[in-house]
Amino acid sequence: MHASDIAVSLPTVTADDPVTKAVRLMALGRMPGLIVVDGQGRPASVLPGTQVLRLAVPGAYQEDPALCRTIDEAHADVFWGELGERTVGDCLPRHPVTPATVRMEATLLEVAALMARLRSPIVAVVGRDGVLAGAITLERLLTSLALAPDD
Amino acid sequence: MHASDIAVSLPTVTADDPVTKAVRLMALGRMPGLIVVDGQGRPASVLPGTQVLRLAVPGAYQEDPALCRTIDEAHADVFWGELGERTVGDCLPRHPVTPATVRMEATLLEVAALMARLRSPIVAVVGRDGVLAGAITLERLLTSLALAPDD
Repeated sequence: MHASDIAVSLPTVTADDPVTKAVRLMALGRMPGLIVVDGQGRPASVLPGTQVLRLAVPGAYQEDPALCRTIDEAHADVFWGELGERTVGDCLPRHPVTPATVRMEATLLEVAALMARLRSPIVAVVGRDGVLAGAITLERLLTSLALAPDD
Repeated sequence: MHASDIAVSLPTVTADDPVTKAVRLMALGRMPGLIVVDGQGRPASVLPGTQVLRLAVPGAYQEDPALCRTIDEAHADVFWGELGERTVGDCLPRHPVTPATVRMEATLLEVAALMARLRSPIVAVVGRDGVLAGAITLERLLTSLALAPDD
């Protein structure tokens, strides 16, 4: 099997979309992460779910567990209501890393090795023109490996 | 809400379990990671799904994309059949990191900040005795935050 055989179509966001939309999309779709595409439909970032969450948790809380404990329960439940109009682009790292992408012809071993190396439970599959052709989640990969004929 | 309010019971593994069992458990349960418990039921490791995958992908392939491409499609589909009897403990890092755990009374903000900081889509909830009381997945956290009353 090749990446193109097991890739599926998943919703994506752009850098201009609000962070709240990104989190909602991911939760509704039960996706383990999100692909951010540019104006040409090419993957600009491939974000593991924890990094989408990172967009939504104010940086000071991420780095300081003691600060988190000073926030009472009621406010801790609604912290992401304070995100307002912040966009995905506002929250992405200044120096973006190479997005987790594979070619259509990549083998499942290549996909698995990439996920393991980049710690990304989602990878983007791209065509020769670099445009997003689909996505492979960790769950999809594991299911496909389990169903591979054993020779 | 507190961690104990949203924690769920999920299957766990021990260091003596085969890696193949760990991968299968995670795939069948559609879990984003796995908790490895010690003989006293305390979390020894909390592994994001990509790190469970890492247990199953031979190290040489993880570090060398060119080597991956030398493996043909049929063999790339069945690489994890070569795992044999290797156990979770055989594959864990020599210097284990502090497992991603929270107390029962932790707020959802604390849980979110921990997931974001440790890049772990699963955290273990522990009682005062350090024994595993439940697990919180990223999906569960996001759903709980979405349902929190907005005051």
